[in-house]
Amino acid sequence: MSDYYIVSDVGGTRMRVAVFEVGSIAPSRHEVISTHSPGQTPLKRLLELIIKIQPTGGKLRAIAVAAPAVLDPRTGFIYDATNVQGWVNIPLADILTSEFNAPALVGNDANLAALGEWRFGAGKGHHDLIYLTVSTGIGGGVIMDDRLLLGSRGLATELGHITVEHEGPVCGCGQRGHLEAVASGPAMVNWVLEQRRNGVDSILPLQPVPTARDISWAAGQGDSLSREALVRTGRYVGRAVADFLHIFNPSIVIIGGGVSFSGPLFWDTLLQTARSSVMTPAYLDGLVITHAALGDDVGLMGAYTLASMTYPVELTEKRLDG
Amino acid sequence: MSDYYIVSDVGGTRMRVAVFEVGSIAPSRHEVISTHSPGQTPLKRLLELIIKIQPTGGKLRAIAVAAPAVLDPRTGFIYDATNVQGWVNIPLADILTSEFNAPALVGNDANLAALGEWRFGAGKGHHDLIYLTVSTGIGGGVIMDDRLLLGSRGLATELGHITVEHEGPVCGCGQRGHLEAVASGPAMVNWVLEQRRNGVDSILPLQPVPTARDISWAAGQGDSLSREALVRTGRYVGRAVADFLHIFNPSIVIIGGGVSFSGPLFWDTLLQTARSSVMTPAYLDGLVITHAALGDDVGLMGAYTLASMTYPVELTEKRLDG
Repeated sequence: MSDYYIVSDVGGTRMRVAVFEVGSIAPSRHEVISTHSPGQTPLKRLLELIIKIQPTGGKLRAIAVAAPAVLDPRTGFIYDATNVQGWVNIPLADILTSEFNAPALVGNDANLAALGEWRFGAGKGHHDLIYLTVSTGIGGGVIMDDRLLLGSRGLATELGHITVEHEGPVCGCGQRGHLEAVASGPAMVNWVLEQRRNGVDSILPLQPVPTARDISWAAGQGDSLSREALVRTGRYVGRAVADFLHIFNPSIVIIGGGVSFSGPLFWDTLLQTARSSVMTPAYLDGLVITHAALGDDVGLMGAYTLASMTYPVELTEKRLDG
Repeated sequence: MSDYYIVSDVGGTRMRVAVFEVGSIAPSRHEVISTHSPGQTPLKRLLELIIKIQPTGGKLRAIAVAAPAVLDPRTGFIYDATNVQGWVNIPLADILTSEFNAPALVGNDANLAALGEWRFGAGKGHHDLIYLTVSTGIGGGVIMDDRLLLGSRGLATELGHITVEHEGPVCGCGQRGHLEAVASGPAMVNWVLEQRRNGVDSILPLQPVPTARDISWAAGQGDSLSREALVRTGRYVGRAVADFLHIFNPSIVIIGGGVSFSGPLFWDTLLQTARSSVMTPAYLDGLVITHAALGDDVGLMGAYTLASMTYPVELTEKRLDG
């Protein structure tokens, strides 16, 4: 048995754990369980799943966890993971290190998704990359000059939290008019419901409350309110992408998350808006705007990238020899 | 005579050239002339000023120029410097190298201002810094983890060109509703003129057209329209600063440019708005928001930082020995 890394992607619904042998590009073992279960905390479930999956031979080089959280990536301390019960002010990296006697790293899920797409996905070969996920929330990760942007406390690239309508709806974060408040899945649903209540006709019912996926389906059926909702969302995201081009000047923008698969009406509007909103065409020179490639594996692949770059084989061996 | 660097800051009105001896923190020589003069191109004026100022002894280690331009910092090629006559598609670094037989670097003025403030000014000791200049235009430079953000083509951190009112006034770049279009000096003047034309009372005349400085003066006299203009501008910049905190999570935001000296009404509004607009107080933890410290010297000090960091003494000597 080779030496190996253990990586995990913890979401609000499911947690995944995988083993990657040193130098491999696919996991040798992989488990998925629900994050929450009566009578057992998510932390306990994570620790037990790692114990269950850990190989008996070889040496554990490092553990890395992607978490949907505000956290300090330099210490692996989680301040708050809204959707994971009990993950408030917990020193997750320290806990993992003391349990498994190996270095441990914790990263924000959108940041690690950016790393994963850069190393293994749509962003391979690019040095300056933006990853934007449009889903229940809007998150982001940015790589500039082959390095993940973290900021002074590791809180950088909250790309969903830029103001796009300063009198707009209240965002999940409490501020008003953020991109997430007008262009996330729930924001799109809220807008549709509001139009319906104002008497706009649609094949979508008011009850049960439709999902972003329902809107995408109804748009495919020709429902004009749903079509308008997708165009409107594509325009918001497209304008934000143009702003991000001016801010980061990447060579690739990768868009993931459920809403990114809402179909051509959303996607084409996004592309057209982004391209027509740049201040000079130089920003489009060689630019790729594309879908995320890694799907549900993006968090695991990002965590593996983090672990294997932070504790590469050579470095680990030097440390052991020294 | 020691070895030395020659640095220049070329603006739309004046150009400065200075000589910094290796290891010094102040120029040993310094000249300022107008950028434009009948019968002589700005390029010719720059080359002649460098010849005039160049010491006879010692060795020229490198030349660096700050330019108000869209340019490629990796090659020193200027695509377009709107306010400098004839600076369209010129290989400035190559021209300087062939004239003076030394390595030459060219950087965007706002980017180099960020470098200057980081190395010698208000940002000393910080690793993650935003510099924002609010003046005729709005420009920016960002340092993350002690490195200037450039982007794939060197066009990053155009911080004035983010959309803050998508139905707002047309920006100098041709797009609509950018920060620069609502919060630069001319944008503030335009707003005041529009209010005056709509019958709002003010001690400011419609003719001659007031300047941003006139508005600041009138606000000090208690003119309510001028006071409102400053508050409005401070609010726009403050909201943008909060967005930039979410994007970059710096430990310091440095604000320069003429409008930044419009007095406490502008400044206090900016600070209050920025602080009250962050998504979590963690972004304010240890954060400094302050005025630029280097004044008119910022471009020169930034160019000197670029030259001396790119061609440090040790490196230059190694190159010569090797």
